[in-house]
Formats: sequence, structure tokens, C-alpha cells
Amino acid sequence: MSLLAVGSVALDSLETPFGRREDVLGGSAAYFSACASFFQPPRLVAVVGEDFPEQHVQFLRSRGVDLAGLERRPGKTFRWKGRYEFDLNTAHTLDTQLNVFADFKPVLPEAFRDSEYVFLGNIDPDLQRTVLDQVRAPRFVAADTMNYWIETRRESLLKTLRRIDLLFVNDAEARELAAEVNVVKAARKILSFGPRAVVVKRGEYGSLFFSGEEVFAASAYPLQSVFDPTGAGDSFAGGFMGYLARSRREDRGTLRRAIVLGSVLASFTVEQFSLERLRTLTAEEIRARFTEAKQLAHFDDLELDLFERVPAS
Amino acid sequence: MSLLAVGSVALDSLETPFGRREDVLGGSAAYFSACASFFQPPRLVAVVGEDFPEQHVQFLRSRGVDLAGLERRPGKTFRWKGRYEFDLNTAHTLDTQLNVFADFKPVLPEAFRDSEYVFLGNIDPDLQRTVLDQVRAPRFVAADTMNYWIETRRESLLKTLRRIDLLFVNDAEARELAAEVNVVKAARKILSFGPRAVVVKRGEYGSLFFSGEEVFAASAYPLQSVFDPTGAGDSFAGGFMGYLARSRREDRGTLRRAIVLGSVLASFTVEQFSLERLRTLTAEEIRARFTEAKQLAHFDDLELDLFERVPAS
Repeated sequence: MSLLAVGSVALDSLETPFGRREDVLGGSAAYFSACASFFQPPRLVAVVGEDFPEQHVQFLRSRGVDLAGLERRPGKTFRWKGRYEFDLNTAHTLDTQLNVFADFKPVLPEAFRDSEYVFLGNIDPDLQRTVLDQVRAPRFVAADTMNYWIETRRESLLKTLRRIDLLFVNDAEARELAAEVNVVKAARKILSFGPRAVVVKRGEYGSLFFSGEEVFAASAYPLQSVFDPTGAGDSFAGGFMGYLARSRREDRGTLRRAIVLGSVLASFTVEQFSLERLRTLTAEEIRARFTEAKQLAHFDDLELDLFERVPAS
Repeated sequence: MSLLAVGSVALDSLETPFGRREDVLGGSAAYFSACASFFQPPRLVAVVGEDFPEQHVQFLRSRGVDLAGLERRPGKTFRWKGRYEFDLNTAHTLDTQLNVFADFKPVLPEAFRDSEYVFLGNIDPDLQRTVLDQVRAPRFVAADTMNYWIETRRESLLKTLRRIDLLFVNDAEARELAAEVNVVKAARKILSFGPRAVVVKRGEYGSLFFSGEEVFAASAYPLQSVFDPTGAGDSFAGGFMGYLARSRREDRGTLRRAIVLGSVLASFTVEQFSLERLRTLTAEEIRARFTEAKQLAHFDDLELDLFERVPAS
């Protein structure tokens, strides 16, 4: 049930209609790890600079995350500055300082090479494959990507896609990657690129899971207040992969529950800035919201005699 | 189980990325009636001009629709001309000719006044109440509206809202009506205006149902090809109200199945231009897609011991 996570650990500066925060904990691997830790504390491979606050390291350690692969290098930590407008759906990047992340060459500690479940966060697809090269016998590999790699590193990304089991994308990315407007057709085309499953995240509308002929639609938990959408996608991946690694099964029912748990974790993350909500989150809250998600989507079968009196057409 | 429908019957000219059609059958009451007829053929109150093709009258009659309230007046039928761009989500109105619809004063035939279920299509909210004044003891009243009425006839619309059980709106309309960006808050505010339930339609993303503290999320059936989104909302309302009138129950389970059936009927309507798909649609196809919708959204409960080995946070 070993779970490996590779991605960014960052210091984010965020502006939303509800406030702003400077240099708070962020990065795909941070959100992923904190969320996955409720099910299966992951092994983390990432890089931070000399300025990275020790308290964040302590937080991840307290969640059981294996930090043997967290490299601290001379220089500053990756910084991202973003702003969300009133609808909170789109992040506008104000500033990106790659700093030590610019030369990130993920090297797995020997003890990480037997990892069975692997999450390749949103990094250069070349680096994603470098990670895979170092894992002896991965059982289930999921990857995230973004429009930047789709536009600038398409061939490399396609190579990565041939080596993974599942791709996480949002709907705009799915359309762009597949060059197909219809999201169902786009997902099927992405499956033809290699992965045996694709999760299309649609923000407040939920997500769609495609694998072979199967489709699963998970509604997002309808929230009255979204404070900060940063990290929602990585939280989704964290809940999903954490549960999968914990279960050690990839059957249809497990994958569906994993998607709902991903959605649940993301719904908590966006309730507060940065990873704040994840610091106080409990297993009981996760379980309760999963049950609410089930209530949210449940309906009974139709009556058998429903159409009997329908007039002939 | 009497069901009354009031709204427009129109001749539409449509342009989509997949083709165009001139002067085809359209209008809220036409879509509504054809869809409701699978469950409970409605009584139709609408107006058409001298140019309205008899074949359309025959089609509605063949579906069991009671046409005693379909007035034919001197002049031309209401015409709408619209275009959809590539994403098919937004209709751009190219031309509207109200014609005989401009003076539409819905008058219910005496035999219609005992109707129990009432659908008030998207017309002037003053007229919507005029209809209600003529129904002796309505049991369940649903209404549709649009941004035009929200912007120009807000006070009248609020009066109508105090007299209905359920409002159908899309998410943009919900936000505008409630002056609230968050869709959950918007829906709750609309409930405070009078209706005991609101359905927020979100196009390809599905719909949300709010009533009291209850929320139900129905995913839209993911379609590989959408030809013409015209009439999707009225088809939804038709499936919903037809099933409700057929069931003569408004319990939670019935309302949820009604929403799924509304979504199912809408999913068929958009597969072809105008009401074409509804002409060939069968009860078996509706039932099969309902079952697919159930498979689409189904997931099992979490394992009981899931969080037992989680490290202390």
C-alpha cells in the first residue's frame, strides 16, 4: 500500500474576494500529501529552499508523510502568486518564481523505489517519466498535467500518457489535449492515448470518470462558501490515490468511492485558505460528508408500471 | 392527475455548428407537452397563427395532448431565430417576432379549470398569475422564467413566486434573481421568495434541486453528440411535471425520480433538431436511459474500518 507523490511544495500568495494571504503553504504535492494522509500517508518527493518554514515540515510529518525525499536546497522555495475573481472558477497567475523548483530533478530515495501507487503531480512530463524510471514495479500510476505542458510539451506528455493508468485533467485541459469540444469524446480520445482511465474535473460541477465504456459522474458537494479554490485538484487526487492505495484494489466500486472521496477532500480544502482546513479535518468529518454525498446523489428505481397507460405514439 | 401547460408554441429557425433548420416546431409549451405526454398528456393553453402547419397540431394530438386550449388567431405564429456557437451552451437570439403571441391572453377552457398540476412556461409573470387565477384548486404549480423577466418585471415575478410550488431556473438566472453569486445561497434565497422548491438547471453539468434543507444533485447524461440545445429546459420541465402528475405524489423520492426523468427527456431532445427526437422516442428508451443515469451516479458505502489505521493528526 506504499504511495509515492511527486510534485511541487510551494509558498503561495493568494487573493480572493474574501481576503488575501502571503507566503502560505501550497504546491501540488503538499495538498496531495495532506489529503492522502487520511488514508495512506505518502512518500513525498519534492524540493524546497532554505527559506521554507520548519513548521510546514513539521505539519507534513505530523500527518505521517515520509519526508525522506523532501530535498532542501540552497536558494528560495517555489513561489506562486494568484488571484481569483468573484466566481472563483479561474485562477489568474500574478507571479511565478520557480526558484529551486527550476532545477528540480526528482531522485527517489532507495526505500521509495518499491512504491506501488504513484502520483505524478503537475510537473514537466519528462520529469514525470524520470520518476517512473526509478520505480521498480508500479501497480497504479496517476498523473496530473496542465495547459502549459499540453501546449509546449505535447509529445513528451503523450509519452507519459502511455505509461500511466489514470490521468487527472480539468475539462478545459481535456478539450485541449484531445482537440475535441465534446467532453465525452475528448475523454475517449485521451483513453486512446494510453491511460486506462481519465478523471475530468469540472470544479463546482463535480467530475466525470471514464474507463473503457464505463462512465461515472460524481457531483461536487454544493458549498455555501468557497474561500480559496487553490489545491482543489491536488486534494482530489490525494483523496483518490490515498484511498486506492489504502484499499489495494482497483475494481469499479473502489474507483467510484475513490472519486467521491477525492471530491469530498477537495470540498474541505476550498473552505479555507491554503491547507488550513486540512489541519483541523477529522476522519469523522470525511465520513459524514461522504454520506452526505451519497444522499445528495441517491434516487430510487422507477415504478414497473410507469408507462402502461401511455397513449400510443 | 390532470396536468395543465401554458406557454409558447413557435416556429423556430435554428443554426448550430451541425446544421440549420427553418420554421421548425418549437416553443416552451410544445417541448413541454411532448415530453410530459410520455407520463401524463397535458392540457395545452397556447396561441398560434393562421400559418401554423396542421401537421404539428396532428403530432401533438397523436401524443394525447388536449388541444382545447390551443387558440388559432389571425396573423402569424410566434417566431424565434437563434444561433448556437461551437460550445452549444449559449443561445444567441438573432430575431424574435412575437406576432400573435404579443397579445396572448391565456384563457382556460372551462374543462381545464380543475387542473391539479400546472406548468407556467416562460411568459410574462402577470400572465402566469392570470392562469393561476383561473385554476380552481391547483395542487402543484411549477413555473419557468428568464433573465428578461427578472430584469424588467421583477416585482411581478416575485408576486408569481409567492404562488408557486417550484421554480425552474438555470444557474445564471438563479444568481441574477437572488443577486447572489454562490448557487447554493442563491437557491436558498429564491426559496425565501415563496416556492417550496427550486430546480437549478446547469446544462451539460446537470441540475440541483433545493427544498428546505434538502439538496439533490442530478448529473446530466453525458452525451457524445448534442445537435440542438433548444427546448432542453422545457423538456426537463415536461418530464418532471408529467411524471409528478402521473404519480400524484410529491414526496422526496418521487421528486428525485422526476428530476432524473426531466434530465433524461432533455438529453433525448438535444440529440436532434427541434422536437424530432421526441417523435421517435419510446418508453423503453426512456426507461433504459433512466437506468443508465442510475448506473452513472451509483456508488457504495465506505468500509467501516476505513480510518482505523490513520495516524494521529
